[in-house]
Amino acid sequence: MQNTKTLKELAEYLAGTVRGDATCRINGLAPLESAGADKISFLANPKYAAKVAETGAGAVLMAPGGEAYGRNVIEVANPYLAFAKLLNLFYVRKPTPLGVMGQACLGSNVTFGNDITIHPGAIIGNNVTIGDRSVIHPGVVIYDSVTIGNDTLIHANAVVRERCRIGSRCVIQPGAVIGSDGFGYAPDGAGYYAIPQIGIVVLEDDVEIGANTCIDRAALEVTLIRRGTKLDNLVQIAHNCQIGENCMMASQVGISGSAKVGNHVSLGGQVGVAGHLTIGDNVMIGAQSGVPNSVPANGGYSGTPIMPHKDWLKAMAIIPRLPELRKTISALEKRITELEAKRSET
Amino acid sequence: MQNTKTLKELAEYLAGTVRGDATCRINGLAPLESAGADKISFLANPKYAAKVAETGAGAVLMAPGGEAYGRNVIEVANPYLAFAKLLNLFYVRKPTPLGVMGQACLGSNVTFGNDITIHPGAIIGNNVTIGDRSVIHPGVVIYDSVTIGNDTLIHANAVVRERCRIGSRCVIQPGAVIGSDGFGYAPDGAGYYAIPQIGIVVLEDDVEIGANTCIDRAALEVTLIRRGTKLDNLVQIAHNCQIGENCMMASQVGISGSAKVGNHVSLGGQVGVAGHLTIGDNVMIGAQSGVPNSVPANGGYSGTPIMPHKDWLKAMAIIPRLPELRKTISALEKRITELEAKRSET
Amino acid sequence: MQNTKTLKELAEYLAGTVRGDATCRINGLAPLESAGADKISFLANPKYAAKVAETGAGAVLMAPGGEAYGRNVIEVANPYLAFAKLLNLFYVRKPTPLGVMGQACLGSNVTFGNDITIHPGAIIGNNVTIGDRSVIHPGVVIYDSVTIGNDTLIHANAVVRERCRIGSRCVIQPGAVIGSDGFGYAPDGAGYYAIPQIGIVVLEDDVEIGANTCIDRAALEVTLIRRGTKLDNLVQIAHNCQIGENCMMASQVGISGSAKVGNHVSLGGQVGVAGHLTIGDNVMIGAQSGVPNSVPANGGYSGTPIMPHKDWLKAMAIIPRLPELRKTISALEKRITELEAKRSET
Repeated sequence: MQNTKTLKELAEYLAGTVRGDATCRINGLAPLESAGADKISFLANPKYAAKVAETGAGAVLMAPGGEAYGRNVIEVANPYLAFAKLLNLFYVRKPTPLGVMGQACLGSNVTFGNDITIHPGAIIGNNVTIGDRSVIHPGVVIYDSVTIGNDTLIHANAVVRERCRIGSRCVIQPGAVIGSDGFGYAPDGAGYYAIPQIGIVVLEDDVEIGANTCIDRAALEVTLIRRGTKLDNLVQIAHNCQIGENCMMASQVGISGSAKVGNHVSLGGQVGVAGHLTIGDNVMIGAQSGVPNSVPANGGYSGTPIMPHKDWLKAMAIIPRLPELRKTISALEKRITELEAKRSET
Repeated sequence: MQNTKTLKELAEYLAGTVRGDATCRINGLAPLESAGADKISFLANPKYAAKVAETGAGAVLMAPGGEAYGRNVIEVANPYLAFAKLLNLFYVRKPTPLGVMGQACLGSNVTFGNDITIHPGAIIGNNVTIGDRSVIHPGVVIYDSVTIGNDTLIHANAVVRERCRIGSRCVIQPGAVIGSDGFGYAPDGAGYYAIPQIGIVVLEDDVEIGANTCIDRAALEVTLIRRGTKLDNLVQIAHNCQIGENCMMASQVGISGSAKVGNHVSLGGQVGVAGHLTIGDNVMIGAQSGVPNSVPANGGYSGTPIMPHKDWLKAMAIIPRLPELRKTISALEKRITELEAKRSET
Repeated sequence: MQNTKTLKELAEYLAGTVRGDATCRINGLAPLESAGADKISFLANPKYAAKVAETGAGAVLMAPGGEAYGRNVIEVANPYLAFAKLLNLFYVRKPTPLGVMGQACLGSNVTFGNDITIHPGAIIGNNVTIGDRSVIHPGVVIYDSVTIGNDTLIHANAVVRERCRIGSRCVIQPGAVIGSDGFGYAPDGAGYYAIPQIGIVVLEDDVEIGANTCIDRAALEVTLIRRGTKLDNLVQIAHNCQIGENCMMASQVGISGSAKVGNHVSLGGQVGVAGHLTIGDNVMIGAQSGVPNSVPANGGYSGTPIMPHKDWLKAMAIIPRLPELRKTISALEKRITELEAKRSET
């Protein structure tokens, strides 16, 4: 039997308000252009409001007070967020807990919460604790003495090294590495002596880690990712970093050792951040930028090295015209020399 | 017994023409400098034609009409391509199909073509289909409902997530991740709400994916890599991207979400491409460049942000001389001020 | 029983000299600020010498002749190196060799040295040789005909492909890929023909490879990483590269094919190096730089494309002021035009 809901039920779920027929039955989501009468659509950007007039959707999610063009509407403060929540409601099934499946490999003294799933080919070390409803996919390797919270999902072939701590409701994408050794060496004359990296990584609750992203363990203490922060794929977090709450780092960002990043910091793709510096809260850094020094709270920056984003836009507009500028300068120089020559003649 | 071929046989294999002794027997390839009489060598760059005079090779692959210096020659339109084909002929053995080996782990309702190999430690989910002669290496994890074509090779510890579709004759290097969740979050006031990524990834035929490269599944529909495209190691393709046919992306390239890339596009290492833009066919972008906006077909670009490659070369030549330019400007300013002062004296 | 040592024992271990009470017993390390009487601390930077006066540490590692403020001291030439060595002594336990554990999977004709550990879920191919005391973690896949030296540690889910050779005392972090196919294709008119990559990778002794780092096998011969070189996470080394001894490459560096890098070369994070070039010994390249051409020995460079580091600093200081410079030039032009006009009036 299909999963259908009335608009009344959906509005209650979203804490929104129905305008129109609250008994209308909905079984999924679709774009305004292609939705049928059993689907709900959404209008996030007022620019597209005219599409509402033409949609075949059974209902539309929109901000309060929007023009309904005679459609059924659920008014919600944040239609995009409501859309995401309905995606979850209609299309995402909580997997049935399967327990410890055949061909999973468990160490000694492993502690499981209720309703966990350990897939075949997962390897769990000694003295590991895994909370309620967490799911460990095939090929994941959990080293000794790791703790993992509730409702955490670790995808295939990710690795969590010894003693690291993963919070609740975390998601780790395939191939991510948590707790690899920090890159620390002492020159010993002939070459380099590896400094033992005896610290750990802590991911607080609601942290999400992208595919093949690497987070190095601290040299002595903790590499810390605070709650709610999301890292995209192929990101590098070096040892001893402290990353704040609800940060967003796009793919291929690299943060050097011992950097401190505030809350609500947003880094574009391929940004590089030097070590031993501090980035304040609410800072945004544009893609491919390089951050060599500390950055105060609240601002947008771009460039290598970074400058205020607006200054960067202006400066970059001039770069392709530098050859022309140089010619202008040479021409001016000639004209001045001529003026000087004439001057001295007089 | 060694694998030896006459020049006649090799010329037939390559659709080329023998000049010289067609019965000469060859058992492998070597550089012009070190080849012996049982080896064939190749001249791809006419700059090195003089080496042909001195080679001990039994024969030389060259373009039609090249100077043979008395050597046996196979004339072919593309000597480099012919060299690659002979490498395959002499040195690459098709592995014997081994079936499903011990310690592989299969879900329910798995469908295999003929002559497949599933190595130990591979984990295949439920409802997976794998075509003829495909090879799945150890530690590969294939989630549920994936389909894989014929003659496809998936190397160790790669991951293909649920419902993704891999074409025929694809090669996936170790550790690559196909179908990780796209990086999509809706701010909900306190933090970020993860938008379910219910789409998939489709790799068409003859696509090759580098080691530890990540391709995110679409939010709703398909992240698409069209046929013949090759991605190097550690590349990031974000959700909803559509990448054209026969593109080449060097290592550490990052493509942001919903970008559309045309056919025969070539991206140098570490290039970054912004989201929601279009790159036309036959575009080449130089290494480390940043592409912030759409790019029309047919052109070469470099820089962050990109400009025509020739303009970039000229502009970059000036960057180290900016301090000098600034001094020149200050000096000019003084000279003008002096001229103005003298002018007003008169 | 706890691991305690007298200062005399520690000084002998470090080839240092005790000043003060050589019978003082130490059981670990701590920072100057928080160390108790049973801990040893270290002073690496003379800037912090005053902290020695206030420390509660039982002893302090410092350079010869430093002010002891009445504390027990071990004088050593390199206090930071001594600190690293004591970290090892006090906190790192050699794991007990466990042999081939259950659920490891061995091919035929595998040769092991003494005291090895092959963890569950490791997959070892045919004709593999692994030296004394080496440790292979879960999920590691070693393809056929690989040789691995003594005391080498390969972490979870790393992959070493066929015929590659790993030296002694190497460390490979989780998810690293050694020996993936080089990115080589010959255009064949319609698309690209993959050039068989029949070479290998050789890691000499004391090489360390970061998490999810990729090193491609050579097309024909060897991709070589010489002894003592350390690569951070997510680094790309393309096919046919030769990397010298005791190099340090920070995270996300990419080296293109056939590049030759000298000894003691240091590359900052996200540096890109073009192919078919040579970097001399003792070169340092700043983070995010792009190296398009060969670089002579001994120098520091930054920028894309690189220039001497000092020039780069000066040039970068001008970039944000380019709009202002352009205005200055326009203003000068007007003033000159005016002067010229007045001149012609006279």
